[in-house]
Amino acid sequence: MRRERVPALLRQVASGEVDAQAALGALGALELPSTESLGFATVDHHRALRQGYPEVIFAAGKTTPQVLAIAERIAERGEGVLITRLVPEMHAAVLERFPSIDINPLGRTAFLAPNVPAPVGRGTILVITAGTSDLPVAEEAAVTARSLGNTVERLTDVGVAGLHRLLSESRALEDAAVIIVVAGMDGALPSVVGGLVSVPVIAVPTSIGYGASFGGVAALLSMLNSCASGVTVVNIDNGFGAAFAASRITHA
Amino acid sequence: MRRERVPALLRQVASGEVDAQAALGALGALELPSTESLGFATVDHHRALRQGYPEVIFAAGKTTPQVLAIAERIAERGEGVLITRLVPEMHAAVLERFPSIDINPLGRTAFLAPNVPAPVGRGTILVITAGTSDLPVAEEAAVTARSLGNTVERLTDVGVAGLHRLLSESRALEDAAVIIVVAGMDGALPSVVGGLVSVPVIAVPTSIGYGASFGGVAALLSMLNSCASGVTVVNIDNGFGAAFAASRITHA
Amino acid sequence: MRRERVPALLRQVASGEVDAQAALGALGALELPSTESLGFATVDHHRALRQGYPEVIFAAGKTTPQVLAIAERIAERGEGVLITRLVPEMHAAVLERFPSIDINPLGRTAFLAPNVPAPVGRGTILVITAGTSDLPVAEEAAVTARSLGNTVERLTDVGVAGLHRLLSESRALEDAAVIIVVAGMDGALPSVVGGLVSVPVIAVPTSIGYGASFGGVAALLSMLNSCASGVTVVNIDNGFGAAFAASRITHA
Amino acid sequence: MRRERVPALLRQVASGEVDAQAALGALGALELPSTESLGFATVDHHRALRQGYPEVIFAAGKTTPQVLAIAERIAERGEGVLITRLVPEMHAAVLERFPSIDINPLGRTAFLAPNVPAPVGRGTILVITAGTSDLPVAEEAAVTARSLGNTVERLTDVGVAGLHRLLSESRALEDAAVIIVVAGMDGALPSVVGGLVSVPVIAVPTSIGYGASFGGVAALLSMLNSCASGVTVVNIDNGFGAAFAASRITHA
Amino acid sequence: MRRERVPALLRQVASGEVDAQAALGALGALELPSTESLGFATVDHHRALRQGYPEVIFAAGKTTPQVLAIAERIAERGEGVLITRLVPEMHAAVLERFPSIDINPLGRTAFLAPNVPAPVGRGTILVITAGTSDLPVAEEAAVTARSLGNTVERLTDVGVAGLHRLLSESRALEDAAVIIVVAGMDGALPSVVGGLVSVPVIAVPTSIGYGASFGGVAALLSMLNSCASGVTVVNIDNGFGAAFAASRITHA
Amino acid sequence: MRRERVPALLRQVASGEVDAQAALGALGALELPSTESLGFATVDHHRALRQGYPEVIFAAGKTTPQVLAIAERIAERGEGVLITRLVPEMHAAVLERFPSIDINPLGRTAFLAPNVPAPVGRGTILVITAGTSDLPVAEEAAVTARSLGNTVERLTDVGVAGLHRLLSESRALEDAAVIIVVAGMDGALPSVVGGLVSVPVIAVPTSIGYGASFGGVAALLSMLNSCASGVTVVNIDNGFGAAFAASRITHA
Amino acid sequence: MRRERVPALLRQVASGEVDAQAALGALGALELPSTESLGFATVDHHRALRQGYPEVIFAAGKTTPQVLAIAERIAERGEGVLITRLVPEMHAAVLERFPSIDINPLGRTAFLAPNVPAPVGRGTILVITAGTSDLPVAEEAAVTARSLGNTVERLTDVGVAGLHRLLSESRALEDAAVIIVVAGMDGALPSVVGGLVSVPVIAVPTSIGYGASFGGVAALLSMLNSCASGVTVVNIDNGFGAAFAASRITHA
Amino acid sequence: MRRERVPALLRQVASGEVDAQAALGALGALELPSTESLGFATVDHHRALRQGYPEVIFAAGKTTPQVLAIAERIAERGEGVLITRLVPEMHAAVLERFPSIDINPLGRTAFLAPNVPAPVGRGTILVITAGTSDLPVAEEAAVTARSLGNTVERLTDVGVAGLHRLLSESRALEDAAVIIVVAGMDGALPSVVGGLVSVPVIAVPTSIGYGASFGGVAALLSMLNSCASGVTVVNIDNGFGAAFAASRITHA
Repeated sequence: MRRERVPALLRQVASGEVDAQAALGALGALELPSTESLGFATVDHHRALRQGYPEVIFAAGKTTPQVLAIAERIAERGEGVLITRLVPEMHAAVLERFPSIDINPLGRTAFLAPNVPAPVGRGTILVITAGTSDLPVAEEAAVTARSLGNTVERLTDVGVAGLHRLLSESRALEDAAVIIVVAGMDGALPSVVGGLVSVPVIAVPTSIGYGASFGGVAALLSMLNSCASGVTVVNIDNGFGAAFAASRITHA
Repeated sequence: MRRERVPALLRQVASGEVDAQAALGALGALELPSTESLGFATVDHHRALRQGYPEVIFAAGKTTPQVLAIAERIAERGEGVLITRLVPEMHAAVLERFPSIDINPLGRTAFLAPNVPAPVGRGTILVITAGTSDLPVAEEAAVTARSLGNTVERLTDVGVAGLHRLLSESRALEDAAVIIVVAGMDGALPSVVGGLVSVPVIAVPTSIGYGASFGGVAALLSMLNSCASGVTVVNIDNGFGAAFAASRITHA
Repeated sequence: MRRERVPALLRQVASGEVDAQAALGALGALELPSTESLGFATVDHHRALRQGYPEVIFAAGKTTPQVLAIAERIAERGEGVLITRLVPEMHAAVLERFPSIDINPLGRTAFLAPNVPAPVGRGTILVITAGTSDLPVAEEAAVTARSLGNTVERLTDVGVAGLHRLLSESRALEDAAVIIVVAGMDGALPSVVGGLVSVPVIAVPTSIGYGASFGGVAALLSMLNSCASGVTVVNIDNGFGAAFAASRITHA
Repeated sequence: MRRERVPALLRQVASGEVDAQAALGALGALELPSTESLGFATVDHHRALRQGYPEVIFAAGKTTPQVLAIAERIAERGEGVLITRLVPEMHAAVLERFPSIDINPLGRTAFLAPNVPAPVGRGTILVITAGTSDLPVAEEAAVTARSLGNTVERLTDVGVAGLHRLLSESRALEDAAVIIVVAGMDGALPSVVGGLVSVPVIAVPTSIGYGASFGGVAALLSMLNSCASGVTVVNIDNGFGAAFAASRITHA
Repeated sequence: MRRERVPALLRQVASGEVDAQAALGALGALELPSTESLGFATVDHHRALRQGYPEVIFAAGKTTPQVLAIAERIAERGEGVLITRLVPEMHAAVLERFPSIDINPLGRTAFLAPNVPAPVGRGTILVITAGTSDLPVAEEAAVTARSLGNTVERLTDVGVAGLHRLLSESRALEDAAVIIVVAGMDGALPSVVGGLVSVPVIAVPTSIGYGASFGGVAALLSMLNSCASGVTVVNIDNGFGAAFAASRITHA
Repeated sequence: MRRERVPALLRQVASGEVDAQAALGALGALELPSTESLGFATVDHHRALRQGYPEVIFAAGKTTPQVLAIAERIAERGEGVLITRLVPEMHAAVLERFPSIDINPLGRTAFLAPNVPAPVGRGTILVITAGTSDLPVAEEAAVTARSLGNTVERLTDVGVAGLHRLLSESRALEDAAVIIVVAGMDGALPSVVGGLVSVPVIAVPTSIGYGASFGGVAALLSMLNSCASGVTVVNIDNGFGAAFAASRITHA
Repeated sequence: MRRERVPALLRQVASGEVDAQAALGALGALELPSTESLGFATVDHHRALRQGYPEVIFAAGKTTPQVLAIAERIAERGEGVLITRLVPEMHAAVLERFPSIDINPLGRTAFLAPNVPAPVGRGTILVITAGTSDLPVAEEAAVTARSLGNTVERLTDVGVAGLHRLLSESRALEDAAVIIVVAGMDGALPSVVGGLVSVPVIAVPTSIGYGASFGGVAALLSMLNSCASGVTVVNIDNGFGAAFAASRITHA
Repeated sequence: MRRERVPALLRQVASGEVDAQAALGALGALELPSTESLGFATVDHHRALRQGYPEVIFAAGKTTPQVLAIAERIAERGEGVLITRLVPEMHAAVLERFPSIDINPLGRTAFLAPNVPAPVGRGTILVITAGTSDLPVAEEAAVTARSLGNTVERLTDVGVAGLHRLLSESRALEDAAVIIVVAGMDGALPSVVGGLVSVPVIAVPTSIGYGASFGGVAALLSMLNSCASGVTVVNIDNGFGAAFAASRITHA
């Protein structure tokens, strides 16, 4: 927690969102050192302080012991632990160490709630997917957004080849505060969504497709060149990043 | 004309589409040699015979004298002369040599009608553009399609960022025999059109855009990965090729 | 079935192609809702209605239960079920659920015929392959075209390095209504075929090759730049898409 | 204006931001048709209605008469006219037709204020540039953001090779509601900024650089792979798009 | 001249190909230093000695004075001077300095014959072009091959879209010792030629084309993936290199 | 055998290279049909006739039964069978069917000698490798060249980082009729070799390397841009193609 | 050892760094031949002589017997053996043959110290990593640098998203003679480090990341375009190369 | 000047390199603010202090007034002004403002010496070019290196196609402290140089070449994959960066 968040914390206590004991613990964290060296990693406790969000562990390219060690340092301060790109081989070890952690195999995530819940974001984040194969990325986005304190709604398999599936959901589109659009192949869906709404639209290309989809490059380029003004884009398959950006918006 | 087209020609005479004199001339061409060497070019009179279409002169990379010389060989057999990618510097010389030629500066084309008009294609070819900047390519397609004997309709600036512009033209979509969709930037329009109709859809990416549009590559990839089944694609800015393919369909 | 297809259905009944009972069932489908949500998918019954073709299930990136669930929704309306990119691991489950389904391991397809056969397409679709290794993609195209109501002929291993193999089959070329040319490596075959015939030619690049073939990119670019006018192209290895486009032509 | 904006308009009148006469005119626009065909363009009056922003004219690839004609249709409804990528050759004609238009040569923009000013966005949009050469893109972003009703601050030439220039401006960083970071070459600045703040960060790669910068691709890729969570990206040199996205956030 | 070439020279004198005076001069060059420094260049007299060919000046990226200075050093030893990629701006200065030089504007070459003609190559080098626009590259190849002592034949505009143009020239194909095939766009011609003959085939991709030809990359890739065995490839537009390689073959 | 090779065959008989019985068999093949259809393949007996070389079977992408069936058709005419890219899984079946076939695991080849040995090529083909890891490709080239009737020499691991290894082998360089240079990583060796000799040099890039070698693209580009004149290039890892091209030269 | 290193060796003896016996052995190596042929490899003993460093064995693409044979030739001269990209399958065989060799599984290296230690480099080489996943490449760099006689320090997981982790280590930065910066994803860290110090900075992009990181290309391009002057770059994942370059600096 | 450089300055005074008056001025600069805002630029006086080198102005993408204004701020502190990528249009204005500035048109540089000369670097920096066309980049490197206090030697046009030109200069290679190798096309020269010497080698790819050189990419990739250990690389055409890196080495 960064010092500037103290007033917000007090408001959370006042509203009953957070109880006094948890708030006390959170305040105590202000006295701890801002970084912690594990040899193979330098845990950035400061990052959580600076940005008001729990630090996130990207499991790809890390060993199970490395993931666990970093998670322990974060958990022992009462911060929330979010792990992304968790491979099935790590599930058992993670569960053994953190029995109450919530593993989502489809989204390849694990989430251990913090002592003090994240501040509630403004409005709903709507996660739309073009096809069934885009679901893992959408799930990563949904878990991330929820762990950051947001309400999440979903709209699945509403790609532009069957426009009526999307157009019949205009109510969901209108009710969203931010929309994340997940699509592979031609990446055309964000342009259509971006033209229908006035709220922020974040496009996530997925590596779904074959041949000249080039692992998501076709969708990425399509989204960067969207003819709908003001669509922004994150890396291929980066559901986490899209949700993090959306949560920056709902918490701004 | 290829020998197999004689019956079709006779039907054209019978219906009054072609008069007897012109038909006679057309039949005479069957006796001429199938190729003609100009030193810098080998005119493929055979191609017209094989495919039932006037040979087409791609002016880019040719000098004005080369373009004129090839055009003369074709014209002197009474075949139609279609020149594409005609640059403004060539206009005067082309007009001087062929006073009755029809130059279209926007489409960068010139067309001199044949003695015997091309057989009439079945149905209407609809040329749709996503934006105003796609017009030159669409114009090239329209001129080509017409010169090959087709009826052409147009729908302009109906990109997916304002879907209602397209949806309000459902009648035009339903009436087309073949649809050519011309789009740059995100290249999303063919996917939407392809999902709305059951007729053949030919997508033409254009080099419109900047940055990561990479001169039309973004649109090209988007179209090759279209989530609407059965959309086919031609080269970037290749309005001519799209129309030629469409005319193969309407004449099949 | 879309409402506009009612007259066509009646003609099918009149000609004995479809019996009255089946036609009644087909008409009944008009009353059912146009989309159906499965949580992970939104089945587009409307698509079949709009385009007159059975919806197609792309199995890659889907789990076996997802594929089965979607197939069940389509089958229970009496529509034809076509599955592409079926992996061997799914064969047993698919066969168990749909004992009468026709699995084609080479083409990686499964097809369950609809109650009312698809309307018969005009003429023959000829599928040509440059080499033996292009066969799986050609097979996918052939199965798709047949399931959509077309007559299919094949010409195999007639690449341009041995031109006489192709030239000796001029009769097959002349008899086709549409030609699909499947080729990897240099992708040169569609240019040669496109120069020999006047019917529509659809080129399918395959990922066959190595080194600078870049998984089919060399063939794709070659085809997009075909010096034969009016060749159109689909995505790498997209035999399904080529056949779907061909069938749009034979049914237009 | 879209009908749903009527309450907002009334609040603007109440607060004195908009006078009654202008509000009346704005209400009148609700009765006009939503699209207008100019032959070469289909003006999307509906877009302004849907998204609450004036339609924007992208001048690249359009002729001067086309730009003027579209601008006239928008201006005659009292909407604001924003033109981007305006080339110097168009300045005189634009000024002659709209004497009160505000041309910004550095940003390549022209802006004619609407009768009713755009609703005021929440907070400040901070536009940061890494180097002097990134200024034109930053200027396009600043003009766009202001024309959409936002307060804009600037921080110039604070690239990461001299970190202290950025670190000494922490106050400006903390005060922003949204930050747009414009950078070419290595595109490293958004990662640093994204790690320092908790508000939304939109990265704009520029085509500044040479050799392996590939016209901005190096910066684009760097930004898409930002190690700071939640940075989103727009197309190369797309200052307009970044500002439009930022304004979606400040108006959400 | 390298020392090992003395016997060959004597044979040339014996056969009357070279007169005694010239042979004496050539022998004298053996005593001169093998490299010569001009500050901006190190003339490799040794290269001519090692490889039996006159050194060649690539004019692109050099100033006129640099080109002239290098040419002078070569000419003053009686070696042949071949300049490639000569731009029109250099013509006057080159002619003034070397009045007897032979400038070929189409091929962008200049050639000043050596005192002792290059040894005659074995057989004919056939240069084939797919289209009229490939002529400049073919001309560069022809001039280079001739300057290296070869007999050159030409076949122009015989691309695969009109196969009969090539097939009717089977005699020319059979008579060649080496074949250079120059083609842009789909680059398909070398595969067809390579399948028809048993002699060495060198493919030269040209930058002719547009859109997805990517300045000759499509043709280059097609040629590298030729399905005809044993076709070798040189750089895009490198007519000089193809001819040099062909001459290595005819002189081996 | 093609009819034109009869005189060569007679010379082989005269010199004792071929015995009369074998020659008779070879002559008999002239009466057999030129192509043979296997359903999945069209065996091009004509190709062997046209090019004087045994047809070659590229095993990648073919099943073991397909490889065997094609091999049988060729072997039963007494032609030589060369199989490339043979995977270990095929070894047993190939050996069982053709007990006398010569399998080379390093070069991934199998070769069954023809009844009449291939005509002997002129001179030696020298195969040079830059590093140990380039050996499989070099081996494929060596086996191919030998099976086509050539004498082959080898020079291994003489990359440019240790120039003296190459320079100390000048004798081998001077004695070669054609040189094949196999190199990965920077692909610099062909430029150095090409500058030292006057005979034809064929460069084979290999996929050896990592990171920015992009599977051989770095070496390929380096070779296409060789500063030594007249180096030609084949596809990445295409040892077969290089040897086939070299043999076209030694047999020309 | 190269002859020029004799004085350095004597100084090492004088200072007690090397004992007399070892020095005698080292001097003896001067009499051995400079290259040694193993059939599959030409060991470059000369390279060690020329560059004062033990030759290094790149194990990727080599068989275990090949690696062992080369190592034996080097070891039997008393030179140090460094093996990189050692795969786990080779560990047992390497240890059996060289029981005292030092295997580093994380860095994929094995090192057998030479009889005479490498000359000590000037100052400390600091190896910095942006993230935990970059450790294997950093480890390869550290082992290499140490084996070449250098003192190595490490700074781990100090990427730019948490700048304070780097800024708090200014002492380590100031004390280094050369800095190697290892980073994947956005590759931004070398620009920041390069702007903070005046010593040489060598950037190593890693293949860490996903999607548009393209296996390290994003980081590579970012580093090549670094806005900090004088940062140099090596190939993706090339920790060895960076350390070798750093050691060239500390030994110059 | 940074405070830590005071002892070095005193040594320069002691040795007579710098006179007392100039030293006093230099010391005074320590009191001035570290950055200065010009609106369009934030001059980083601190950078010179941090890195001991005069700040450098990259003129590309800046206007003449911008270049002059930044130069003035630097010059008025007595620091040296180095401008790179100076276009001819700026020459007059630069000379008028700084009459004693030294403009180098070939290298596109301007240099105004500082009051206190840069500390002298250790040893000689050798700049090698492969061809005449690489000279502008080499010149930029030479001017930069000299302005940073280094002695520079040159070796021109010694590309690998004529190896003897390089091998005959072994003395220059041995005498250098750092070698910068500038090469376009195949980029092979740094590998050869890197194998011959033990000092640091910095490779600069140039955009010289055509076709598949892709503006220097072929050379860049070749250099990144150099088979000579420890070659480092800078951006295409970045002579300045190479010299800056070299000077970091000679001043370390």
